[in-house]
This record gives sequence, structure tokens and C-alpha cells, in this order.
Amino acid sequence: MAKELKELTSRSEDYSQWYLDLVIKAELAENSAVRGCMVIKPYGYAIWEKMQRQLDDMFKETGHVNAYFPLFIPKSFLSREADHVEGFAKECAVVTHYRLKNAPDGSGVVVDPEAKLEEELIIRPTSETIIWSTYKNWIQSYRDLPLLINQWANVVRWEMRTRLFLRTAEFLWQEGHTAHATEQEAVEETEKMINVYADFAEKYMALPVIKGKKSASERFAGAIDTYTIEALMQDGKALQSGTSHFLGQNFAKAFDVMFADKDGGRDYVWATSWGVSTRLIGALIMAHSDDNGLVLPPKLAPYQVVIVPIYKNAEQLAQIDEKVSGIVSRLKALGVSVKYDNSDNKKPGWKFSEYELKGVPVRLAMGGRDMENNTIEVARRDTLTKETVSCENIEEYVKNLLDEIQENIYKKALDYRASTTREVNSYEEFKEEIEKGGFLLCHWDGTPETEELIKNETKATIRCIPLEGDKTPGKCMVTGKPSAQRVIFARAY
Amino acid sequence: MAKELKELTSRSEDYSQWYLDLVIKAELAENSAVRGCMVIKPYGYAIWEKMQRQLDDMFKETGHVNAYFPLFIPKSFLSREADHVEGFAKECAVVTHYRLKNAPDGSGVVVDPEAKLEEELIIRPTSETIIWSTYKNWIQSYRDLPLLINQWANVVRWEMRTRLFLRTAEFLWQEGHTAHATEQEAVEETEKMINVYADFAEKYMALPVIKGKKSASERFAGAIDTYTIEALMQDGKALQSGTSHFLGQNFAKAFDVMFADKDGGRDYVWATSWGVSTRLIGALIMAHSDDNGLVLPPKLAPYQVVIVPIYKNAEQLAQIDEKVSGIVSRLKALGVSVKYDNSDNKKPGWKFSEYELKGVPVRLAMGGRDMENNTIEVARRDTLTKETVSCENIEEYVKNLLDEIQENIYKKALDYRASTTREVNSYEEFKEEIEKGGFLLCHWDGTPETEELIKNETKATIRCIPLEGDKTPGKCMVTGKPSAQRVIFARAY
Ligand SMILES: [Zn+2]
Ligand SMILES: [Zn+2]
Repeated sequence: MAKELKELTSRSEDYSQWYLDLVIKAELAENSAVRGCMVIKPYGYAIWEKMQRQLDDMFKETGHVNAYFPLFIPKSFLSREADHVEGFAKECAVVTHYRLKNAPDGSGVVVDPEAKLEEELIIRPTSETIIWSTYKNWIQSYRDLPLLINQWANVVRWEMRTRLFLRTAEFLWQEGHTAHATEQEAVEETEKMINVYADFAEKYMALPVIKGKKSASERFAGAIDTYTIEALMQDGKALQSGTSHFLGQNFAKAFDVMFADKDGGRDYVWATSWGVSTRLIGALIMAHSDDNGLVLPPKLAPYQVVIVPIYKNAEQLAQIDEKVSGIVSRLKALGVSVKYDNSDNKKPGWKFSEYELKGVPVRLAMGGRDMENNTIEVARRDTLTKETVSCENIEEYVKNLLDEIQENIYKKALDYRASTTREVNSYEEFKEEIEKGGFLLCHWDGTPETEELIKNETKATIRCIPLEGDKTPGKCMVTGKPSAQRVIFARAY
Repeated sequence: MAKELKELTSRSEDYSQWYLDLVIKAELAENSAVRGCMVIKPYGYAIWEKMQRQLDDMFKETGHVNAYFPLFIPKSFLSREADHVEGFAKECAVVTHYRLKNAPDGSGVVVDPEAKLEEELIIRPTSETIIWSTYKNWIQSYRDLPLLINQWANVVRWEMRTRLFLRTAEFLWQEGHTAHATEQEAVEETEKMINVYADFAEKYMALPVIKGKKSASERFAGAIDTYTIEALMQDGKALQSGTSHFLGQNFAKAFDVMFADKDGGRDYVWATSWGVSTRLIGALIMAHSDDNGLVLPPKLAPYQVVIVPIYKNAEQLAQIDEKVSGIVSRLKALGVSVKYDNSDNKKPGWKFSEYELKGVPVRLAMGGRDMENNTIEVARRDTLTKETVSCENIEEYVKNLLDEIQENIYKKALDYRASTTREVNSYEEFKEEIEKGGFLLCHWDGTPETEELIKNETKATIRCIPLEGDKTPGKCMVTGKPSAQRVIFARAY
């Protein structure tokens, strides 16, 4: 059994297959009967709940409140903002009817042609349009601003090629939609939220990210500026992990949302939107996990510690149970989530493999000799190392160890990124280097033409124009024209 | 301003209009641009978040985990269970296409006829079918059972006549879907969850409910037995507030879900499902609120205490600010949520009306004389009474007061229900009494024919066959035939 469980394709053999194996075998998600839609299984959903709770706290600490807007968007709303419709109207789920009826031949149910909607409804691919049509009624004066609203919701984008968590037709996300009296305030909000996402990625997901702006061609459809956090996966490919958009007055103009300012003038409202999704679970998996299974940062692990008893008979198990129950309560008192697995239908070896696969950060094992010696075996998931330590103050020991693991996972990802991020100065070199993966810092002339040429020839895209770091100007590696600063190129998910 | 805010239609004048006025003016929800779909505004959503958090904790304490299943259901799935399709296939949103394209005449976007789905997708009205099609792959043996899974999700039922929170095309809910090896265990689960709902209603919503079974004609489509909790609104009408269904083996048979039992035999799996929705917010409003606005039980109030300073000048405000900040921290330390509203663009009278309308359980006001005397004015939302008390230990005083308010709101609702619940022994009397509202305890012969006759003639339905209370047999008030026990009739939402 243990062997079968661990039968993951190795990363070096086939990274994509390794990812898929892991998602399935760690019971995170699976494909459903509906093409492109996934079922998020309880263990995967528990990770999402941890993410949600933390992000929601961070949004509330920065002054936001939650609300809920309709799933459906009238088709005509999409056309109101010219760029937006180009970006989102193409691949979407369209509701055309509101009733089924029994098939005349008794074969089941069919769409009732008499129940055709006058105007088709689109399942939201993102909610700017329905929300700004609502904000029109909520905003009259500067006193109504800012509006700082977030929504947790499902959205649908009809993707042709899907991959669990990374790209699915339906996914779960949050989308913040804020309204401001001034451009400056909206830009500050956009930047504040990309910083919140970066903090979340680094402190909770243990995932180092680079903050930057997207090039014009990679912007959100309808945005003036899109800020992004970009993470590096273990196969050297980038993963866009969160975006925050400065929307200018585009949606206010599209939905005619004006406000009376303090001086009696009237102006269109300034907007932002920002979101992260269940895609983050894909990022978490691909950044840290190994050929034995998941490696979860303690701050997002559904349970941080598992305890497994190793016993010869029922009497010995009873003794271990008693000893462990004290450890469990002391760990819980310190805020550590812990599972004691004394189920008797599975062997310790099977359990070890199972919890390794599931990425539980710390595994404690107690056997007969440990009982005698007042010791316990402590195994770290991140390093796969084991040691035997005293039960005295084990709870403090474990709590500190969890912090250490959180830091170590982050440091490992940071070291990997550092080792695969380099400056490249010629297009010849670029074509060679891009094959090796990682982030390439290059000069680019700022034109979409050059960007597209590079993309067509190398499959690499500009991940972002970094906000921090070296801002020295130079010359474009392709055209030799002036470049304001190096930008980050990579192949991406 | 204060007057305008308080302009609610009174309950005695027009209860329905009072409800609608209140939902709008207390900023709980509003109708959206999409027919039948509501926008849940931040204050309304904050109540839902409190409900969600508490229910989620109760589900987890009873051994359940969360997961997420697709929004879409293939049309053919609905036809698999004969009763289910009759109940749910009729009024639902149907996705027929997956792409839009630019209109040839440049007028916007139109549905792309080439992007027609082979099989239409239904937006889930409830998820039994998609979930049981998934459980088929998850359940092979008794070792895989029980499955105790809940999902928080949006669902869509194409209602023709909608009312905010009570009946909307899209609503938010949770749906539990469990799978068991034995009939007995499934029945126990069904009962356990109706008890969880009743506890939640009574302890958190301060809403007394009657637990019972639905008559056959009011059962969930596809259920063997539907358990319900029924609450009484202030206008004498009943509101079904939560249901828990024993589904027998119906869905297991429809989706061919069998398991190997301990003795090597094979049997279909036993099922339950159970749900509550944003409808509970409607129940909360209609059960407790008054002509001045919302009355919220402290355990579900977005903030439990508001503090308003009454000051002549900035200097005095600064003194009050300092005094109040100590009270705020001491309240927070006791776990009380509190808002200090020292905004200077609104007068105290306006604030008083606003927080009354919003149902904040306790309002504290501090003026110049209070400062001198070390006192503070305490106003209760439930009784609309005020008193001046010492600031000494005010936090303990308020904490106890919140408990008292929670109890008092429950007691008031319970007294009202007791005063309007009565036994009725003849159909003549019934026709008179039903006009007065309330719960009528009557004998009924158990047939759908008699039930329908009563419904057609009086608009009253059997709310439930109570699980507790008097079980003395008698004779049907309409037909004189034998009745096993009294059942509850009422007009209902
Ligand atoms: Zn535009
Ligand atoms: Zn049936």
C-alpha cells in the first residue's frame, strides 16, 4: 500500500505529470464530469480555507468589507467597456434559457424553447461590469467614497486547455473592487493591495515573489495599469500569482458613475480591482513539493503535526494513547493543529507515507522504547530528517520547529530563485538561457512589437517590469533601442 | 436626515412593505440589474459571515469537512432520479453556448452559434446529482464511509416572484451531502443536522423553532423523509428555516454507488443532504425587528456596541475620545465588538437613528456631564430603554447586558409564538382562526387529498408533523378519519 501511494512520477522525469499525480494522490482535487471544472476535495479545500481566512483578515485590516454581487451579467454590460469586452466576452458560459421540460418522447428533459431569455446572461468571468452598474446607485458625492469592497466568489472562463488549480473553467477567487475620489488614492490602493498579496505569498505561502507592472499587452482588459506578483516554480517557469489593477475612470465612464466633489464640481470615479484565486494552491504545490509528495508551509497546512503510535499490542497502545493525549493538549494550547492517528487498520509505515504525501510539516512517532525513555521521534517533512528528542517541553520544541520549517521552505525557494535569476545582455544568449528556465533580467525597448517577436520565437513573456531593484537604463537586447530598466522574462504557466 | 432615515412603513400598516423598506434602508440588500438576483450589501453580508462562521464551526464539531463541487450540472444528470427531476428541472438557468462574438453590424456582442454545447449545462439548483456522480468514484468499501461533506456555494432557481433574502433566483447557502453504510446511520445523521440547525436558530438567531417532518407532498424532491425547522414571523406566517433530508438509497441507485460491506456483500449507499441559506437573514429580520428598524441578536450583530460622543467643541471631544478609548479596549478585551463613531459630519441624533435602524444591540453615549460624573448613557435596542450608569466596570455591565438582550429577544419571540399557537378541532373554527395567523395544531387524516383541499380553501399548509410534544391520536378535522397526532398548519412564506 505504502509503495502504491508513493508512486508519483518524479519531477525530473516529467514535471507536468508529477504535478498531476500529486494533486490526485494527495487528494487535493480531481476533474469532474463537467469538462474543465474541478472538484476541490476536502484536503485541498482545507488549504483554501486557510488561505481565505488569512487573506480575509488582511483585507479587513486594510479597511475592506465583503459583499456579494450576482453570478449573472447581462450580455450588453460586457460591451460597455471596449477593452474589457475584447478580453472577456470571447470564452464564457452563456445562459440562454430558464426552463427545461419533459422530452415529448419520454427520453428525459429538453430545453423549453418558449423559455428563451430576452437578453442572454453571461456567467461572470470577473465582476467589474455588474459591480460598476451597482456602484452607480451607491455613489453620488465624495462622502460616499472611498468604497472598499471585496467579494469571495466563483467565476467561469471557458478555457480550452485546463489543468487542475492552474487553469480551470470554473475557479474560486476573491475580487476587490474599490472606488475613489482621486487618481492618486486609486493608485495607492492598487499598490497597497499588490503589497498585501506579496506579504501573504511570502509570509504564509513561503513563496518569494517579484512585484512589478505588466507590459501593456499583458494588462487586464480595461485597466490602465496591472500590477502583478510573479513566482518561480521548480521547473523554472513563472506563475502569475495575484494581480491588482488601476482601472482609471474606464468603468466609471462605461457605467456613467460620477460624483460631486468637495468644491461642487463633478467628475468620474476612479477605480481599482484586484484578485487571487485557487490558482495559488497550484503555486503552493509547484514551488515546494518534492518527489515524495506535498511540502506544505506550516502556516497553511490543514494540520501541522501528526502523531503516530507504534505498538505491539492493545495494552501498549493504551499506554501510548495516554502519554500522547497530554502532548496533544499542550500542543493545542500553543495553537498548534495536531492529529493523532491511532487507527488500527493501517500500519505505521503506511501512515508515514500517507502523511509525507500529504505534506504534514512535522510527524511525531512514539514507540515502546520511547515510552520507557520519555522520548519521541520527530520527523521534518521539509528536510526529511529525523531525530529523537525528550518529551520534556516537546510542545515548545515543536512550535519552534514549525517556525523554523516555515522559514526554511521560504529560504529554499528564495535560494532557488536567486540561483536561476540572471542578467542576459544579448538576444543570442537569451535564446540559449531561456531553455534553462528561471527569470532573465533583460533590456527591452518597451514596444509590443519586440515583445511579441520574443514571445513568438522563444515562448518567453515579460512577466513584469519590477518595482524594486536595479533601474539602470540600457539598450534593448533585440533592437538596441533605449530601455528604461531591465524587465523580467520567463516562460510561464 | 434622521426623520428620513426612519421613514419605514409600519408593520401594522403593511408588513410586506415594512420588510422591504427595512432591507433597503438598513442597507442589507437590494435588487440588481439581473431580474430576481440580489446584491447583498456589506452590512447584510456581515450578518451572513457571522452566521457562516458559527454554522461552519458547528458542522466541523460534528465531524464534517468542506469541499467544492462544480457550478454546472450536465442536463442528463437531472433526469437520473425521477422525483428529483420533477422538482428541480423546471425552473433553472440553462447554459447552451460557450462563446460570444462581435456582432456583424458592430452593435456589440452576440452568441456565437458555432459554440453550442453538445449537452446543455444547468446551473446547480442543488447539488445531489453532481455530488453523487462524484461519490461513485470515492466509495468502494465500507472503509470509505461515512463521507461527511459540506459545501458553501451559490445556487440558482428561476423564481418568478422574488423577495429579497426570502426568495431570489440566486442565493447563497450551504449544502451537506453525506454517505453512509446503513440506513440507521443515515437517519441519525439527518436528525443530528436538524438538531444542529435548531440549536443555531435558538442560540444564535434567538429564534424559537419547531422541529418536525414534512408531509409527503412537501418533501424535498428525491427524499424519503424531509425534516424541517419552522419559525413564526411577527405577521403570524411561518417560515421554513432549514431542512435535512433522508434520501434513502435513491441517489445511490440513480448514480450506481455501491459499496462492499464488512461481510463481503454489496449494497447501495445511504444518503442525506441538508441546507440553510441566506433566507435565514430574512427570518432574522422578520422575527425580531420593529417599526424603528432592525433588532439584531448580539451573537449575530456585525458590531454589538456603538459609542457616540456628545460634545460642544473639539477640546471636549478630545477629552471624550480619551475616556472612550479606554472603554473600547476593555470591551474588546472581553470579546465585545464595538464601534466608536466620532465622525464630525453627522449629529448625535442622526447617529442614534442610524444605529437604531441598523439594530446595534447596545448604544453608549457620553456627553460633558457624563465626563464630570464618570457616567455613560446605555441604551438597549431591544427594549428602547435608556439608563445612566457608572463607567466603573462598564465593560462587565455591557457584556452581561448583551447576554440579557440575547435572552430577551429569544423570550419575546417565544412568548409571541406561544400566544399564537393553539389547538383547533373543527374545520369551521380552522377557517376562522387561520385568518388570525399563528400555528394551528390540528388533526389530519394523513392523506395528500385532505392536505390539498385545506391548502386550496385556506392557503394554509402543513408546516410539519412535530417530533416533540403531544402525540395523542384523534380524528381529522376535515374528514373525521383517524389521525396519529396533531400537525402544525399555518400560512407560510
Ligand atoms: Zn478601455
Ligand atoms: Zn425517487
